[in-house]
Amino acid sequence: MIDLRSDTVTKPTEEMRKAAYEAEVGDDVYGEDPSINKLEETAAEVLGKEAALFVTSGTQGNQIAILTHCRPGNEIILEAESHIFYYESGASSAFAGVQTRTLKGTRGVMNPSEVEYAIRGEDQHYPETGLICLENTHNRAGGAVIPIDNMKEIYSIAKTNNIPVHIDGARLFNAAAALNLPAAELANHCDTVQVCLSKGLGAPVGSILAGSREFIAAARKWRKRLGGGLRQAGIIAAPGIVALTNMRERLAEDHENAQYLAQQLGQIRGIEIVNQVDTNIIVADVKNLKMNSSEFVEKLKAEGVLSGTFGPSYIRFVTHYDVTKNQLEDVIKAIHRTAGQMI
Amino acid sequence: MIDLRSDTVTKPTEEMRKAAYEAEVGDDVYGEDPSINKLEETAAEVLGKEAALFVTSGTQGNQIAILTHCRPGNEIILEAESHIFYYESGASSAFAGVQTRTLKGTRGVMNPSEVEYAIRGEDQHYPETGLICLENTHNRAGGAVIPIDNMKEIYSIAKTNNIPVHIDGARLFNAAAALNLPAAELANHCDTVQVCLSKGLGAPVGSILAGSREFIAAARKWRKRLGGGLRQAGIIAAPGIVALTNMRERLAEDHENAQYLAQQLGQIRGIEIVNQVDTNIIVADVKNLKMNSSEFVEKLKAEGVLSGTFGPSYIRFVTHYDVTKNQLEDVIKAIHRTAGQMI
Amino acid sequence: MIDLRSDTVTKPTEEMRKAAYEAEVGDDVYGEDPSINKLEETAAEVLGKEAALFVTSGTQGNQIAILTHCRPGNEIILEAESHIFYYESGASSAFAGVQTRTLKGTRGVMNPSEVEYAIRGEDQHYPETGLICLENTHNRAGGAVIPIDNMKEIYSIAKTNNIPVHIDGARLFNAAAALNLPAAELANHCDTVQVCLSKGLGAPVGSILAGSREFIAAARKWRKRLGGGLRQAGIIAAPGIVALTNMRERLAEDHENAQYLAQQLGQIRGIEIVNQVDTNIIVADVKNLKMNSSEFVEKLKAEGVLSGTFGPSYIRFVTHYDVTKNQLEDVIKAIHRTAGQMI
Amino acid sequence: MIDLRSDTVTKPTEEMRKAAYEAEVGDDVYGEDPSINKLEETAAEVLGKEAALFVTSGTQGNQIAILTHCRPGNEIILEAESHIFYYESGASSAFAGVQTRTLKGTRGVMNPSEVEYAIRGEDQHYPETGLICLENTHNRAGGAVIPIDNMKEIYSIAKTNNIPVHIDGARLFNAAAALNLPAAELANHCDTVQVCLSKGLGAPVGSILAGSREFIAAARKWRKRLGGGLRQAGIIAAPGIVALTNMRERLAEDHENAQYLAQQLGQIRGIEIVNQVDTNIIVADVKNLKMNSSEFVEKLKAEGVLSGTFGPSYIRFVTHYDVTKNQLEDVIKAIHRTAGQMI
Repeated sequence: MIDLRSDTVTKPTEEMRKAAYEAEVGDDVYGEDPSINKLEETAAEVLGKEAALFVTSGTQGNQIAILTHCRPGNEIILEAESHIFYYESGASSAFAGVQTRTLKGTRGVMNPSEVEYAIRGEDQHYPETGLICLENTHNRAGGAVIPIDNMKEIYSIAKTNNIPVHIDGARLFNAAAALNLPAAELANHCDTVQVCLSKGLGAPVGSILAGSREFIAAARKWRKRLGGGLRQAGIIAAPGIVALTNMRERLAEDHENAQYLAQQLGQIRGIEIVNQVDTNIIVADVKNLKMNSSEFVEKLKAEGVLSGTFGPSYIRFVTHYDVTKNQLEDVIKAIHRTAGQMI
Repeated sequence: MIDLRSDTVTKPTEEMRKAAYEAEVGDDVYGEDPSINKLEETAAEVLGKEAALFVTSGTQGNQIAILTHCRPGNEIILEAESHIFYYESGASSAFAGVQTRTLKGTRGVMNPSEVEYAIRGEDQHYPETGLICLENTHNRAGGAVIPIDNMKEIYSIAKTNNIPVHIDGARLFNAAAALNLPAAELANHCDTVQVCLSKGLGAPVGSILAGSREFIAAARKWRKRLGGGLRQAGIIAAPGIVALTNMRERLAEDHENAQYLAQQLGQIRGIEIVNQVDTNIIVADVKNLKMNSSEFVEKLKAEGVLSGTFGPSYIRFVTHYDVTKNQLEDVIKAIHRTAGQMI
Repeated sequence: MIDLRSDTVTKPTEEMRKAAYEAEVGDDVYGEDPSINKLEETAAEVLGKEAALFVTSGTQGNQIAILTHCRPGNEIILEAESHIFYYESGASSAFAGVQTRTLKGTRGVMNPSEVEYAIRGEDQHYPETGLICLENTHNRAGGAVIPIDNMKEIYSIAKTNNIPVHIDGARLFNAAAALNLPAAELANHCDTVQVCLSKGLGAPVGSILAGSREFIAAARKWRKRLGGGLRQAGIIAAPGIVALTNMRERLAEDHENAQYLAQQLGQIRGIEIVNQVDTNIIVADVKNLKMNSSEFVEKLKAEGVLSGTFGPSYIRFVTHYDVTKNQLEDVIKAIHRTAGQMI
Repeated sequence: MIDLRSDTVTKPTEEMRKAAYEAEVGDDVYGEDPSINKLEETAAEVLGKEAALFVTSGTQGNQIAILTHCRPGNEIILEAESHIFYYESGASSAFAGVQTRTLKGTRGVMNPSEVEYAIRGEDQHYPETGLICLENTHNRAGGAVIPIDNMKEIYSIAKTNNIPVHIDGARLFNAAAALNLPAAELANHCDTVQVCLSKGLGAPVGSILAGSREFIAAARKWRKRLGGGLRQAGIIAAPGIVALTNMRERLAEDHENAQYLAQQLGQIRGIEIVNQVDTNIIVADVKNLKMNSSEFVEKLKAEGVLSGTFGPSYIRFVTHYDVTKNQLEDVIKAIHRTAGQMI
């Protein structure tokens, strides 16, 4: 099976496993796990923030950010198909009690003047705007990169209005690779940022939330409430350090692979690539094959390739470390067969 | 001062004051206030529901509906400029813990197929769709009437998916008057409905939430939690009965007045009526007068007429019982003067 | 029927009804109801606070106080049988998200050193102590008066620890009457206080929340979220002004009546008065009559007197404006008959 | 340093590290991690429940149980010094919106008739009793074992009243060892149970929540909302399997060590053992040493032994896998020196 459902399926490398085996550990609730401490310091540095916190998932990092920045009765502004809104089971309203004000973006990019317009004035009838969230790269927009200028402009509006900005950077390193910029330069345009170690970077478990020292101290308590205070967490921090240190540089390969795959698939009759492939995600429309997305995914699975539905006729493919360029040839053949066309 | 800011400014009539004075009362927390009981029975009948509950405001009625229908982690589908989303201070996320899934409507009318598409499937990543809310008439759409067929279609989709429907009918009786239908016929296409006694009907305080007997029993407890359990509430229920019994028929007058006013204002250079005037709300754009809405409202106030801002260049006028046809002539003159044009 | 279930059953006086009839009104959401404004000013003055807010019930006033003082994850310290904990349907956890730390008091009085001990230190595992609540008089302690010295001591501990204090003073005026002190002198030992107009004072509906100007401004928004923003509320504020102005002085009568009634009941074989009658509440134990409290209440009702159960064998009687000294003689006879003893 | 602060400080054994290194992994959000699946199956079997869920901490397991069993406005009954109430930062009120009804136990054991009395009847003023929680062994009661008969009696009351029971069994295996019973026999007296892998069992990270298949399916979604949905979690599940399989049997050793240590410390002048040592926790009062607990802990640390404060004059010592009987001799000497008495 070649698995292109997501970059979350990447398995830990030998180096990561070894790091886990040898990890120096301590009780992280007491702040005594040396591997966690090293991971958090490294992450803060990579992201250009004062402090960082290990969390068990991207969802947890985003939710802690919202819980720490906001209070119930606030409203948060975010893109209409952002992960926080779309894929986090309504947690931000369930736990943080915030209302979601969604703006329809273009390839995941919110229009700054619409963001500005959506900020609430002082009025008894209005929730207070408590946070603006960006997502870079944007998953449902097909891994689209949010341009630096857009981030800058929105952050400037936010500052003028005294509203914090959080970046859901589950795939921030993909954006950095695509823009050929240090991640810290992207994270410069926000107060807090979450990045995943377990997607393209290949770590088995975990994400990082970074921000000011004061913010991270408060976030730590919300993490405890969510049950994210771990004990000898070094065993997962150690592979996380490997991910953060050695795996960022190679993300460009995944992007090249995605380009190649998209270009090949685009030549198959009945398959249309619907996203501009900025990073490692490809979205294909199969409606002209007279199948819905579930049928396509099933058929392709029978051919040895896993993919994901992404709407009634949309399929998502994600390239990552565990799929080599060679395997892509097999993928292309399998998709040809699924589309009913022999090569 | 002629007050066209809202129909909420209507003052109780002599008959209502007398009703308050003479009201039979008891302790409504014990269910012993005869006036409340009569009001709730009358309201249930008028709305064609099994039971009804007196609440202190439209917001309270809507929030109780959401609290009773949903649980935290649910998502509710509602129009992007609906009162519940726009004007209730984020209460539904703060208290009921539900995520708001907003759909942009046309004149307040949501597209049924978009509603259907927005309903979430079974998935760990998704909030469960817990409620669909309609607003009829729709305030921010300028008092637009949601057509019966649209309500019917959405209710049928909801039923198929086992999702309840709540109507924010703060101005349902205006919709009924405009459609020349009994209110119960409108309320037929939902599980629960909230109607205000204090807007066009002129009662000093209060709204009604109606639904099944079982639903209202559960709603009563949520009302208590919100602090809406009153004592000798008959003193406000009695004028409410007058409102519900005697004031519904005359709403058509307000609509005629609104038509007349809109038609006259439309002839003033620099003023553009931007809504189709279905009921008692007029929205005018004054941007061609080279004023923003706040300036216009201030100037018009100096001329003895109160109106409301409704966006950067939009003004809202609402006709109601306390503004007679004669007074409208003064209003028109005042607006002429404000627009800088002598008649 | 003579109704001794609660002082909440008091019906509005002729003067109150007249005040409602003649009330000057306006739209209170816009801050334009003159009667509400006058009531709030009067209440602030009576309570010695900068500002006051009309709310629809004691529960609403208490909950708004908690919502305004605290944020989710806080802990509030309060007496184990306090109204907020016992009778408000869990609203403070449901809406404000605070944990209730209850201390068992003596006649409703918490031990200051236990309060101090219960304040949480700084630790990831601990909720932050966000509020201390007192209840004066204390309902379930049988209308017991919390002594000034106790209030003073707890308030001083609170201040040292930078924690606000709220008084649930639903019956604060009863405490003031019993202590023969101005209410403001009691309210001096807290940041915020809630008092009911609808209990001993006899107003049909409503309570007051008082505190600093800044606090009340924030509270106003939470009131809106709870659906407590009313329109022409003058119709209930006007009788509230009568209550606040003319009815406080006479509470001493209710206390005398309670003394008399307790003394008489104590002489009936099988009935034991279990509380020290400080104010207008009497708690009697009927277990020696070989009845449970529900049976006793039923039997007594058949004799024309309403009372309330207050535990398996406890009965509560509350004296108030609507029960005269003369009627008490009938009550005593009825209880004699219920106890199976002819006079 | 010999660390007796908690059994949470245990470090993974060589076997556990090896298991992590070799772990078969997959994406657990997709249910595809074989090690997680095996751990959950093993745990369900050990606990005699239909299904089990891996969670990242005891707090997370407890909070998911509450979120799944209850809804906001419910009340939960639990012991006054239980971990859920005392050490989980108020999470159950912050997230699940439940009110905590605490009962003072004797050595952590709640009186069944008090539990029964605390169950709320049907009334608008009352939160609904939504859950009863036990803690076995009880941490703050010094590792006290809750007797089977007490659990049985409370569970029977709960069933009669249609209320679920959850056991916080962070140290359930210690209770089982002390009672010489299979853990499943203890877990038989509840609907759901949480057990920690990272305390006495020595796993680096994680806990288990077990219950009916239906319950666990719902719990899985709440875990996702809390950010507890992990990816290649096998890396921590594999050591968890070792913990669950090989480490339970040896807990009796820790108990013997605790007995021995308590007996020795009890002979030191000025130190009083205040708990009955049922399992691996010893609580000593040092007030007769004229030190407070913080001073004692500091001094003892200087002697090479870590312990924890447990109140103003109380010290907690916890025996565990990483402290051998031999090391205890050093501990005893260090405490002698700290107490100012040479041996």
